[in-house]
Amino acid sequence: MIVDFSIAPIGKGESLSFDVAEAFKIIHASGIAFEHHAMGTNLEGDWDEVMAVIKACRDKLLQSCDRVSISIKIDDRKGRVDGLKSKVISARSKMLD
Amino acid sequence: MIVDFSIAPIGKGESLSFDVAEAFKIIHASGIAFEHHAMGTNLEGDWDEVMAVIKACRDKLLQSCDRVSISIKIDDRKGRVDGLKSKVISARSKMLD
Amino acid sequence: MIVDFSIAPIGKGESLSFDVAEAFKIIHASGIAFEHHAMGTNLEGDWDEVMAVIKACRDKLLQSCDRVSISIKIDDRKGRVDGLKSKVISARSKMLD
Amino acid sequence: MIVDFSIAPIGKGESLSFDVAEAFKIIHASGIAFEHHAMGTNLEGDWDEVMAVIKACRDKLLQSCDRVSISIKIDDRKGRVDGLKSKVISARSKMLD
Repeated sequence: MIVDFSIAPIGKGESLSFDVAEAFKIIHASGIAFEHHAMGTNLEGDWDEVMAVIKACRDKLLQSCDRVSISIKIDDRKGRVDGLKSKVISARSKMLD
Repeated sequence: MIVDFSIAPIGKGESLSFDVAEAFKIIHASGIAFEHHAMGTNLEGDWDEVMAVIKACRDKLLQSCDRVSISIKIDDRKGRVDGLKSKVISARSKMLD
Repeated sequence: MIVDFSIAPIGKGESLSFDVAEAFKIIHASGIAFEHHAMGTNLEGDWDEVMAVIKACRDKLLQSCDRVSISIKIDDRKGRVDGLKSKVISARSKMLD
Repeated sequence: MIVDFSIAPIGKGESLSFDVAEAFKIIHASGIAFEHHAMGTNLEGDWDEVMAVIKACRDKLLQSCDRVSISIKIDDRKGRVDGLKSKVISARSKMLD
């Protein structure tokens, strides 16, 4: 499945990039397929694998703040392979019709 | 933590209420604290408890379709008790100021 | 259409209920059909009507902070009437089957 | 402001890329700053500009189906310039600390 995910501490000031960087380190170390974009990170893997990474990010942020906000959007399609790359390509190719 | 959650099959037609009802049965049977609203269901519990319910809903829907879309929004605040009831009340009480 | 909507200032501290109350005042004064729940507010109306209310909430919060986060989920179905009440009822009735 | 946005018809079958391509055409023709990713498209502009593009995508899809689902996540920060590029860079640079 492909999962678009964002996390932010609440109550730690206006700049969030320090905490986002902590989450990035966990994602990169996990070995999971990922794609960062301006509003979040897309992860690809099975349910338990993806959710373990998100939970680890949340546990890390809760070490230095008392409240976090997390947004998760899941597209779970049986049999899809290499979805992180193929989804945008598929829609772009349809634009030529 | 409090989690706003919605799930829908993709490719099964315009009416989603049969599948939503399947998810409702799982939520009700789980014993977790919940609140249905017009656009989703709020769940309250710890991470593993809430995510197990959502995964069970997803597994159920994937038995009868090949693609599901899930949206999850988490508000995770240390030490909060009875958040499903207290959150709206807190904001309403501030309206009197 | 039915719209699930939440708004929060970023960088103003851990408690958000004062700002949420400011948004509630605007929603209540607007005359739009609404339903508060623990994680947001559902609004029902046409596109321009709903978006005007959300923009007014955002404008209000930006008077007292420099950054806001807004989440909007839209279910736009032609010909639906009284969706705020009927959606949960429809799924519940299917549970009896 | 930066807006992460996705749109899908409901009830038109499992593959969504034809309709996503219709939305892409509108986004590209609009002249707005954008970034496609596997789970949506990030737009950058002021409120009215961004919302006009999203509404145009919704109007287009409703010409060929009766129900659409739209997800919008907004990060609205005063004075930010070139946010689509700078957000990921900012978090990455913090990883070196």
